Amino acid sequence: MFESAELGHKVDKKTFKTEVPKLRAELLDVQYDMLQKKEFPVVILISGVDGSGKGETINLLYSWMDPRHISTLAFSAPSDEESSRPYMWRYWRALPPKGKVGIFAGSWYSQPITDRINGDMRRSELDGRLDDINRFETMLVNEGALVLKFWFHLSKDGQKTRLKALEKDPRTAWRVTKESYERLKTYNQLQQVAGHVLRVTNTAHAPWIIVEGTDDEYRSLTVGRIVLEAMKRRVNQEGLQRVPVAPPIVHPIDEKNVLSELDLTQKLAKQTYETQLAKYQARLSELVRDPRFVGKRSLVLVFEGSDAAGKGGSIRRVAASMDARQYQIVPIAAPTEEERAQPYLWRFWRHLPRTGRAAIFDRSWYGRVLVERVEGFCAEADWLRAYAEINDFEHQLSDAGAVVVKFWLQISADEQLRRFKERQDTEFKRFKITDEDWRNRDKWDDYVAAVCDMVDRTSTGLAPWTLVEANDKNFARVKVLKTICERLEAALKDDDGKTTEK
Amino acid sequence: MFESAELGHKVDKKTFKTEVPKLRAELLDVQYDMLQKKEFPVVILISGVDGSGKGETINLLYSWMDPRHISTLAFSAPSDEESSRPYMWRYWRALPPKGKVGIFAGSWYSQPITDRINGDMRRSELDGRLDDINRFETMLVNEGALVLKFWFHLSKDGQKTRLKALEKDPRTAWRVTKESYERLKTYNQLQQVAGHVLRVTNTAHAPWIIVEGTDDEYRSLTVGRIVLEAMKRRVNQEGLQRVPVAPPIVHPIDEKNVLSELDLTQKLAKQTYETQLAKYQARLSELVRDPRFVGKRSLVLVFEGSDAAGKGGSIRRVAASMDARQYQIVPIAAPTEEERAQPYLWRFWRHLPRTGRAAIFDRSWYGRVLVERVEGFCAEADWLRAYAEINDFEHQLSDAGAVVVKFWLQISADEQLRRFKERQDTEFKRFKITDEDWRNRDKWDDYVAAVCDMVDRTSTGLAPWTLVEANDKNFARVKVLKTICERLEAALKDDDGKTTEK
Repeated sequence: MFESAELGHKVDKKTFKTEVPKLRAELLDVQYDMLQKKEFPVVILISGVDGSGKGETINLLYSWMDPRHISTLAFSAPSDEESSRPYMWRYWRALPPKGKVGIFAGSWYSQPITDRINGDMRRSELDGRLDDINRFETMLVNEGALVLKFWFHLSKDGQKTRLKALEKDPRTAWRVTKESYERLKTYNQLQQVAGHVLRVTNTAHAPWIIVEGTDDEYRSLTVGRIVLEAMKRRVNQEGLQRVPVAPPIVHPIDEKNVLSELDLTQKLAKQTYETQLAKYQARLSELVRDPRFVGKRSLVLVFEGSDAAGKGGSIRRVAASMDARQYQIVPIAAPTEEERAQPYLWRFWRHLPRTGRAAIFDRSWYGRVLVERVEGFCAEADWLRAYAEINDFEHQLSDAGAVVVKFWLQISADEQLRRFKERQDTEFKRFKITDEDWRNRDKWDDYVAAVCDMVDRTSTGLAPWTLVEANDKNFARVKVLKTICERLEAALKDDDGKTTEK
Repeated sequence: MFESAELGHKVDKKTFKTEVPKLRAELLDVQYDMLQKKEFPVVILISGVDGSGKGETINLLYSWMDPRHISTLAFSAPSDEESSRPYMWRYWRALPPKGKVGIFAGSWYSQPITDRINGDMRRSELDGRLDDINRFETMLVNEGALVLKFWFHLSKDGQKTRLKALEKDPRTAWRVTKESYERLKTYNQLQQVAGHVLRVTNTAHAPWIIVEGTDDEYRSLTVGRIVLEAMKRRVNQEGLQRVPVAPPIVHPIDEKNVLSELDLTQKLAKQTYETQLAKYQARLSELVRDPRFVGKRSLVLVFEGSDAAGKGGSIRRVAASMDARQYQIVPIAAPTEEERAQPYLWRFWRHLPRTGRAAIFDRSWYGRVLVERVEGFCAEADWLRAYAEINDFEHQLSDAGAVVVKFWLQISADEQLRRFKERQDTEFKRFKITDEDWRNRDKWDDYVAAVCDMVDRTSTGLAPWTLVEANDKNFARVKVLKTICERLEAALKDDDGKTTEK
């Protein structure tokens, strides 16, 4: 992996001095182009062994470009806000918006590599993490990001020599710490682990670029040129590959599907409803105050459904059983400007609850495979890849202790018409039916197809869909509450089992 | 203060049942009105003694309004991200955007009251804090927020009775903790401290509303009605008072001002420049790595100046002496949609550096009293109050350990013309002069007046302005770097003094 980076690459100071002004002017130019177009962000990872010039290179990139549109993110120990959420949360919140450059000094690779060297992570765990990383980077690239991953390499002797040299110079001595020398002891392990990590994550769309770190001029010029070329190509839309889109999704040729099979006539009489509602509200209220929940779990609820299916009413009943200080309801409408400058899932990541808290999403990330698909707001290739991205996302939530409960509230076309008319006659302006609602209704069949695909492709063991027969509001509300209680109970029971095992 | 809230106020259950549906319908209506208009946020503070029904009331407000457009924020111990920034940071980040309702369960009042009761805060400190709070709330109101502050009161016996009753009911028993009873012991102190706090912060624009907490129906209906009436008035723009604007700012009738007195002919020869630049860059580089800085200080740099005065070049030289992982450059352009939905200063609060870090603002909150004033982007009353708000803001920064260094880079009109022309001829498109630059130039005198007022009104002991003679770029850059070093050194020396005293 590192063979080519131990050859003693060098650039003499004179060449460097001649080259830099031109490089710099071009870098600035392309930086301004991308800033104006705001079409994509640049994500630069600077990693490698100690003393290989990571900090110096970052500072040089700043001096070559306009530093006002670059941000550098150093990740040391996670803050308490970070550690009570999925481990990728801190990186999502740090992503540069379209048009800007984000340099990651330390990244999603740092912790796994360190943990593996220290023996805190098994090989199988590491490989699982690398899979996650590959999928994350694929998503970034698909969302338009230019991802450049640099690994600065030094031979073992080279590293020792560099550390000594840095220590001698009063301007750089501070970069060398006791830890630097300690890490020199684990040089071989680092090479081995890093070699594995780099090979597994060396993908076509986000390949590793290994650079010998011995000679400052060589390293800097190499990085500068690669960054420049990559940005130029991207600004000019060169080297973009058309992704072959899969064959169209096939639908059953009879009339049967997961929605048509629902028994929408199910009902609850008022009396039963009130007893059951009270029962499950009380149970939920206890569950979210259970120390086992508060200490290590969180709750993520997703409400999707036909227009007028009663999402709002169900959400109210769920919310009523929790303390307002414990949950946030997140209504999903059109993304804001800041959200549009980020990958699709970013606006959901930012609302993830901490441990012990709940987030109730009124519509959700599934918009991608529902309204965006049906209305043609995004390309087929984009909503097709969303299924896997969403599964990944929910998997990460689940890994971090979140219980993810997803509801699709279904009503019949007739019932919807009845509710639309009822709303139109109501005195409260808030219930005015919009033209959009009527338009959506015309696309009933398209939505059915989209919902069926969504359920098939994203109902996982960790985050299954619950289809709710919602023609009768009472029935729907109780089913929703009961499902949440059961899922929470199962999760807590599962945790107890794990504790006992140990 | 609490006399009227110990009279045993009551509403019978029947009246309550009759009143609620109407109240609810009206609340929903007005909530949707404000959501559509997006003109102002509602900030509701729910405070008071334990067992007085704070949680219940919040939950009730949720069930009466559309919970999707309400957020509730509970503030317990600050997270590490919060505690390494000014103490108001956590509240700023939680402010609801225009159109939404934010309920604060625990607020900027909680900590001072608790600290005072526990003897961790002197009376004079408390009063200082209350001044801060008054100014903060005045700012919120001036920025359009509807601020409703509720204090739920119980007599001492009333509190004991309520706690016992809550404990008995299995649905509410969890609300009563050991701490509730412990706080009962400090009942008298709480009354005394809270009475003082409430009196001092009972302003015309954000008065306290004291509600007896004994009877659930009385308390709920009272709060509901007050919230409704206040929102209705605000939506209909009733009860808005025209603020009398002060007499116009007077300018000296001769030609002398702080800018005209600058000696713009000051120069540094290339040789001297290079020596000096290297010297101060090295010094700054050491200062920001000094453990005394890293442990408890942060650095906030503000760059303002005439167009083409060389802000960017100076920022580069400053940035070059720090590690990119330690600072963020924050270029201030037009606010984003999310920023426009918040009070003016919100977009600067969100970029405040943590302890040990630096933020470099390329243009800043001073836009309010410069471009917004000159171009008429905000009302006279708004930029006039900005001086005091900005001083407050910087005072809070400084209190939290930030060294605030502010630069105005001044060039002569001739020099600006020369630079504009030079830029127009340059090959790099990034330096294209826009029509706006030429238009700004026509308003030279207006800007001079605005700058002089700004300097007079916001150059404080803690955060003085440094006017930089910038006709000669070398001179300007060295002056900037030297000033930062001196301010940092003074701050660290000051800290040493304080440590020795103790």
